[in-house]
Amino acid sequence: MRPARGGGAEVSGFVLWFTGLSAAGKTTIASNIVPELERRGLVVDHLDGDIVRTHLSKGLGFSKEDRDANIARIAWVASRVARAGAAVIVSAISPYEEARRHARSLVEPHSPFVEVHVATPIEECARRDPKGLYAKAFAGEIGEFTGVSAPYEAPVHPELRLDTTEATPAESAAAVLARLEELNLVSSEVVR
Amino acid sequence: MRPARGGGAEVSGFVLWFTGLSAAGKTTIASNIVPELERRGLVVDHLDGDIVRTHLSKGLGFSKEDRDANIARIAWVASRVARAGAAVIVSAISPYEEARRHARSLVEPHSPFVEVHVATPIEECARRDPKGLYAKAFAGEIGEFTGVSAPYEAPVHPELRLDTTEATPAESAAAVLARLEELNLVSSEVVR
Repeated sequence: MRPARGGGAEVSGFVLWFTGLSAAGKTTIASNIVPELERRGLVVDHLDGDIVRTHLSKGLGFSKEDRDANIARIAWVASRVARAGAAVIVSAISPYEEARRHARSLVEPHSPFVEVHVATPIEECARRDPKGLYAKAFAGEIGEFTGVSAPYEAPVHPELRLDTTEATPAESAAAVLARLEELNLVSSEVVR
Repeated sequence: MRPARGGGAEVSGFVLWFTGLSAAGKTTIASNIVPELERRGLVVDHLDGDIVRTHLSKGLGFSKEDRDANIARIAWVASRVARAGAAVIVSAISPYEEARRHARSLVEPHSPFVEVHVATPIEECARRDPKGLYAKAFAGEIGEFTGVSAPYEAPVHPELRLDTTEATPAESAAAVLARLEELNLVSSEVVR
């Protein structure tokens, strides 16, 4: 028999939403947090923007309309999964304030929403440029590239803002975990 | 502090997948089961095909390719939500065997998949015809209508097959619950 969770006790997950420029460090920090949350007894689901696109948004491009549709789908899924009890980590550029506000509005009726702005400056992102995308964008070979030829609207009041220029991924992940503890969303106690 | 579920105990949900013709009774039975599962302490998420389309698949139509894409998206979401611990109920015509097999393959690595064929005969579905769709389909006004101008591939080995012609929705829901108990997926004990 599968146990009903806690005999009917209320359990809710949360959504930890990373927004920021391409190569800012969103996915790297998120990946560092997954095992930390699992060690604290949580079921974790990492919805990475690039991966989710292949499952939910094949055919959508990078116009504002298509980006908004993609983010709305990720947000809808994140809200369902968090409501079911998981810690959901989203890493997606999500450049538009309105789309992020919509995401929050889908999640908050059931679960806390924690927005983390990975605010690494574009100069540093372009220096890293792991996929060579900034070079192409600056050369005009990619249209609608966030921060170059498409806007990035920085969050005004994120739950946390990080600059990864001087920080290791582990240090950034530790800062996020500390914030989650402060918000009473995770325990500092390791259970497995 | 939100409790980590059961101090790290394994909890998994399951996916209860209703397939059948339009007006066969899928959504009605599903809606009758939701409160029963909640009373047994489960978090329940009902993903109804028509509703999910508006969230995930705007722009997709009813060709085989578009139906397959829609079902693949629902299945992907259902697998995430069940893995997080919820009892996920899907009600969707899902006429193609291959698409349902794909859905099962996404879910089963984490969670049980229970396929229920709501096998109400087309004559009875057409007699009910709550949205007037069969009348239009028989008149040739709707193309690619399942059972009329598009195929329905009945499941060969569903976990349960129901004919709602002579059964009330409550009786059908009771039959599904009995099957879930038999599969050890829900307790008969009411916890709230």
